[in-house]
Amino acid sequence: MMSSKNQQEMVSAFAPASVANVGCGFDVLGFAINGPGDEVWASRAETPEVQIRAIYGDQGALPLDADKNTAGVAVRAMMRALDKQDEPGIHLKIYKKMPLGSGLGSSAASSVAAVVAVNRLFGDPFTKNELLPFATEGELVASGTAHADNAAASLFGGFVLIRSTNPLDVISLPAPEKLHCVVIHPHVEIRTEDTRKILRKQIPLAKAVTQWGNVGALVAGLMKSDYDLIARAMHDEIIEPIRSVLIPGYDSIKKAALQSGALGCSISGSGPSIFALVTSKEQAKETGRKMQAVLNDMALESSLYISKINRRGAEIVNKTDNA
Amino acid sequence: MMSSKNQQEMVSAFAPASVANVGCGFDVLGFAINGPGDEVWASRAETPEVQIRAIYGDQGALPLDADKNTAGVAVRAMMRALDKQDEPGIHLKIYKKMPLGSGLGSSAASSVAAVVAVNRLFGDPFTKNELLPFATEGELVASGTAHADNAAASLFGGFVLIRSTNPLDVISLPAPEKLHCVVIHPHVEIRTEDTRKILRKQIPLAKAVTQWGNVGALVAGLMKSDYDLIARAMHDEIIEPIRSVLIPGYDSIKKAALQSGALGCSISGSGPSIFALVTSKEQAKETGRKMQAVLNDMALESSLYISKINRRGAEIVNKTDNA
Repeated sequence: MMSSKNQQEMVSAFAPASVANVGCGFDVLGFAINGPGDEVWASRAETPEVQIRAIYGDQGALPLDADKNTAGVAVRAMMRALDKQDEPGIHLKIYKKMPLGSGLGSSAASSVAAVVAVNRLFGDPFTKNELLPFATEGELVASGTAHADNAAASLFGGFVLIRSTNPLDVISLPAPEKLHCVVIHPHVEIRTEDTRKILRKQIPLAKAVTQWGNVGALVAGLMKSDYDLIARAMHDEIIEPIRSVLIPGYDSIKKAALQSGALGCSISGSGPSIFALVTSKEQAKETGRKMQAVLNDMALESSLYISKINRRGAEIVNKTDNA
Repeated sequence: MMSSKNQQEMVSAFAPASVANVGCGFDVLGFAINGPGDEVWASRAETPEVQIRAIYGDQGALPLDADKNTAGVAVRAMMRALDKQDEPGIHLKIYKKMPLGSGLGSSAASSVAAVVAVNRLFGDPFTKNELLPFATEGELVASGTAHADNAAASLFGGFVLIRSTNPLDVISLPAPEKLHCVVIHPHVEIRTEDTRKILRKQIPLAKAVTQWGNVGALVAGLMKSDYDLIARAMHDEIIEPIRSVLIPGYDSIKKAALQSGALGCSISGSGPSIFALVTSKEQAKETGRKMQAVLNDMALESSLYISKINRRGAEIVNKTDNA
């Protein structure tokens, strides 16, 4: 289906927030959640250039320069792949509907929503699979590494496993029906770059073996909808002990989550958000209350998100004019 | 079902050979093959003691002392768990029907066949799950570590994932229908202990991430019967580069296997056997010929095994008298 060439056409896409790492799966596992996310409006422009015309909801924190903004970088990578002689004129407006720097894949949501919107604007020349590398290129400018766990989760929805980033090889995993997610975002700031710098470059082989046993088991648990196995596998010996020290009250929050009946609890991405997986909405509310109470006791503000696993991923939410 | 107390009763069990590690899954993945394996005959004896009365097919290499023999250690561990006041009198005869020190789980096959036979002798007081820790204790004396990948594969059949060794947590994974295995055993000797000593105790985090991405993908590939994914995931960045130098002609053999159409090829356990996974019996024969030709060119003798994945695991093969 080819799009109209009408310059007034405007397409909007929403890309959901996502939880990367999922405990044991540092840099290889992620899933999408319902609720928070980014919306990007894209339209054709006369002047041949990708321009970010406005960003709402970021309190001025994000760059409008398309070469420095994750959405701009992603769309420019996409335009290069379209192999047009001149870069087409594209205007983007980004509506942040989720917190920045929260560990919920904010930059990935911008990149993903942008490439999905622009793709539709051009008549969907790329499949979702083909869009992922562009979105991942956006991640490079945002966090310094081209990890694809947030972007793939936000794009495809459900659970994703990144087998390899070069070449990019993403495997979609089923989201068990009863699975619900609790995410608590303590209103403290930690820099993604710092959270990566403090990791050790060398790790003990014995711990790595434990970790890949758990990653394999978590994949099996998701595929079998075996909630007990998911619970046993959500154990991270390598990243969590190091990164969790940056998150105030982490150990107490995790303890509260597990005591309340959560299958598992760990850092969302590089934090400071913390997520827990549970098997019902009621359990999610109860676990969320218990987690938030710990932060309340520390007089720390926080936001709580409760949802099922988002299975749809990024999608077109509105299209005006000749759509 | 209680067994007869008749002292003449004799039970025989067969436990298949197995391929541990399966490329990326060092110490956590294994599968059983058809053909080679160990048979253990067990009978009650008047004198209260576990005794290994004979070992056939080992050219005198294995100890008859029950405390030094993997089968003896496993059965004694099992007897302690039965919580009898005195150790019952048990006589074992071990028939090695597979090569020793080949990387095909010879010691595990002895342990597993022994505990399965003795379990039946006592009226099956233990489930297969409950037998595994005893068999694994046998591994400790044979190789110095209580890794359970060979023992679990030999006991349960099919593919197994060892999520944890302490506590022991084994997940059975399906064996895709078309999957066939080629194993070539070059007649050279390498000591399991040496193959473990040469591994680095610290590994780069980046390689570990690649490895756990592949382990997750291999689990997903097996569960989906996705042969392409199995092929992509059978990639080991950590162990194979180090251990393969101990195996003459390894790189050429692997290259021959992959060029002939194998999904993947790697070291079986700690070697020197090399295995390849393929999707048909004809392909298995062709791949086996190509792999063996490399060793022939080096004037090295070898044994070739071709089979489907063994899905039955250890089983009772004969039972005399009051059975």
